[in-house]
Amino acid sequence: MAILMPCLPEGTLPSESIIMQVFEILGCALTDMAKEGLVSEALVDSFNLPIFIPTGNEVKGVLSNIEHLTIEKSEEINYPPNLSNLEDVRLCIGHVRAVMEGILCENFGAELLDQLFESTSPKLVLCIADLGCSTGTNTFIAVQNIIEALELLYRSRSRGLDTDQIPEFQVFFNDHSSNDFNTLFKSLPPNRQYFAAGVPGSFHARLFPNSSLPFIHSSYALHWLSRVPIEVMDESSPAWNKGRIHYTNAPKQVGEAYATRFAKDVEFFLSARAQELVAGGLLALFLPAVPDVLSNSDTVIGTELDLLGSCLMDMAKEGLVSEAKVDSFNLPLYYTSHKELKELIGRNEHFTIERMENLNNPKKHVILPKPSMRA
Amino acid sequence: MAILMPCLPEGTLPSESIIMQVFEILGCALTDMAKEGLVSEALVDSFNLPIFIPTGNEVKGVLSNIEHLTIEKSEEINYPPNLSNLEDVRLCIGHVRAVMEGILCENFGAELLDQLFESTSPKLVLCIADLGCSTGTNTFIAVQNIIEALELLYRSRSRGLDTDQIPEFQVFFNDHSSNDFNTLFKSLPPNRQYFAAGVPGSFHARLFPNSSLPFIHSSYALHWLSRVPIEVMDESSPAWNKGRIHYTNAPKQVGEAYATRFAKDVEFFLSARAQELVAGGLLALFLPAVPDVLSNSDTVIGTELDLLGSCLMDMAKEGLVSEAKVDSFNLPLYYTSHKELKELIGRNEHFTIERMENLNNPKKHVILPKPSMRA
Repeated sequence: MAILMPCLPEGTLPSESIIMQVFEILGCALTDMAKEGLVSEALVDSFNLPIFIPTGNEVKGVLSNIEHLTIEKSEEINYPPNLSNLEDVRLCIGHVRAVMEGILCENFGAELLDQLFESTSPKLVLCIADLGCSTGTNTFIAVQNIIEALELLYRSRSRGLDTDQIPEFQVFFNDHSSNDFNTLFKSLPPNRQYFAAGVPGSFHARLFPNSSLPFIHSSYALHWLSRVPIEVMDESSPAWNKGRIHYTNAPKQVGEAYATRFAKDVEFFLSARAQELVAGGLLALFLPAVPDVLSNSDTVIGTELDLLGSCLMDMAKEGLVSEAKVDSFNLPLYYTSHKELKELIGRNEHFTIERMENLNNPKKHVILPKPSMRA
Repeated sequence: MAILMPCLPEGTLPSESIIMQVFEILGCALTDMAKEGLVSEALVDSFNLPIFIPTGNEVKGVLSNIEHLTIEKSEEINYPPNLSNLEDVRLCIGHVRAVMEGILCENFGAELLDQLFESTSPKLVLCIADLGCSTGTNTFIAVQNIIEALELLYRSRSRGLDTDQIPEFQVFFNDHSSNDFNTLFKSLPPNRQYFAAGVPGSFHARLFPNSSLPFIHSSYALHWLSRVPIEVMDESSPAWNKGRIHYTNAPKQVGEAYATRFAKDVEFFLSARAQELVAGGLLALFLPAVPDVLSNSDTVIGTELDLLGSCLMDMAKEGLVSEAKVDSFNLPLYYTSHKELKELIGRNEHFTIERMENLNNPKKHVILPKPSMRA
C-alpha cells in the first residue's frame, strides 16, 4: 500500500504552509462576504473543512501503532512553501477549488462559489520595461501602445472565459542615473492604467531581477555606445580620430574601433536582457541604422556629424577652441546596418529573431552633397 | 476506464504550452552544457524525449477508432498557459524533474542532472518597498538591514538543501512625484546587492500591482498627512486655527480635525497596502508619536512647532509677514499615540498587529517649558 498525502515539513508552523494560508484566505473572503450580506454569518460559522494536515512524523506515529503494518519506505517530496509567491497562491487556490468545489457548493451554493474564488484569486501582473526612456513623452506613447496590444492579446486568449484575468501592468522606465527622472515622473500621464517605476542605470549591465519581465522595449537608444572607443582618442593608435568628432569619412580603423565597441555593447546588452526576460519573453528594439546599400558617409546623419566636426575644426583654426580639445572629442554614437545587427544577434545564443524590419525604404533616402562640396 | 492526460487546448500552438517551453529550456540548457564540454554533443543529439502531447480532439479521434470503446465523458481541466510566469516555469521544471529524473539520469548521469536543473530553475525574486524614502541615505541603511534579515531567514529555511535559492531582491523607493529622485538615484550605494527602482506618487493611494510585495517598510513618513484638514483653514469653522501653524495648544476642534484627517489617511494607506502585499506579507511602520501619557503640548516637537507659530505671529505683528498668511498656513503633520494607532489598525479588516513597540521610554522624555515661559 502506498500513501501519498500532504504533510507539513517538520519544524514548520501550520501558518507557514501555503495550503493553510489558502484556507485562511478563503475563510477571510467568506467572512467579508457575510459582512456584505451575500451569505449568512451563521452558515459561515457552522462550516468547517474536514481536513487535517499532519506532519510526516505524526503520520508515521499513527501508522506504527497499527498492527500487521510496517513502513517500508517514507519519503518527503519537497515543495518548499513560498509565502511571498503570488503564483503559488494562484495555483493553490485553483487546486483547492478543483478538490473542494463539491463540499463548498453543497454548503454555500454554486453562485456564491464563483464570487468567492473570483475575490480570492489574485490578479495577474505583467511587467514591462522601456530602456533609454529619457524624460519624455515618446516613451509614454510607446508604453500605451504596448499595453493596449497586450490587453488585446489577453482578451483574445481568455476567449470570454476569464475576462477578469486581464493583468495589471507595472512599467519600468530606465535611463542613466544622470537622466532627469524628476521631469519624467512629473510628466507621467495622470490617467495611466499602469503602475510606474523609474530604474536608474546603464542598460549595458543588469537592471532587473532574474526572469522578471515578459516584455522589454527600447527605442532610439541602443545606438548610444557605453563609451567612446579608447583607440580613437589615442594619438599613437592608427585609429586616432584626429580632426573629426565621429567616424564619417574617417580612416577605416576609426570605423572599425566604433564597430568593435558596438559589437561588445550589444553582447552585454543582450546577455543582461536574456537574464531579465522570462522564458519566451520578447525584446523589441528600434534603432537608427544605415541601409545595407549605403555607407555612413552617404547618410544624412553621417554627413551632418561630419559637417559639425569640420565646423569645430574651422573654429579651432580661428583660435576659438583648442584643436586638441576637438581631437579628443568623439561622439559615442554608432549607426549599425540591418546585416550587421542580424549577425550580432545571431552570435548571441540567447535570442532568436522573430521579425526584423526596415522602417525606411532605402530608395527614399536623400543623399546630401558632402560638406566639402556644399560651400 | 478513466484516462487523465496532458493535452494542448484546441487552437493553441505547441510553443504556447508551458510544458513544451520547459522541454525547450531543458534542450537549450543541454546544448549549452555540450558547448561548455560538460556533456558530449553526440549524447545530446541522440537523446529525444519519448513524449507526445496531443490536443483533446486528437485523443478523441484515436479513441473513437477503437472498436468496443465509446467515450462516455470528456472534460478539459483548464490550466491556462502563462508564458510570462516565472513561478509556473519553476513549478513545471520541478514536476518535469520528478517525472523524468529516471530517463534523464540513465542517459546523462546523476551529476549532470543536478547541474542541468540548477541552471534551468529561475531564481526567486523578492520585492521590497520603502515608502517615504526622500533622497537620503537613511533609506539605504534600512533597506540593507531588511535584505540581510531576509537572506538570513532564507538561509535558515533552506536548511542547507537549497543554498542557491537565496532570492534576488528588487527594492522600490517611493516618495511624492515632487521628491528629488535625481539625488536619490545618484546616491544609491554603488555596491548594492539589489535592483533599485523609484516609484513616484502618494502612499495614500495604490502604488504597486496586486499582491506584488512581501515586505513594505515606511519610516518617519506616515505622520505626514495627505493634506491640511480643510476645517482648520476655514474662518467660519470652530476648528479655524487662527494664529497657529499646528494643533499644539489649539482649541480641541483643531486637534480633532487633524485626528480625523489622520484616521482617514491611515485607512487609505492600509487599504492600498493590503492590495499590494502578498498573502502573509508584512508591513513595518515606524512613526513619531506622542506617548499615551502625554499630550502633544507636553512634547518637544509639539512645543517647538508652537514656538515657531508664535514667532511667525510676532513677525506678523511687526509687519514682516501678513497675519492672514500665517493664519492660512498649517503644517500637515500629525503625531499619533500608541493607543490611537492600535485602534486605527484594529479598525482595518486587512491587517493584524504582529508586534508593536515604543522605541522610547516615556520616562526618558524631556519636557521643555512652554514657549510663553521661556522668554
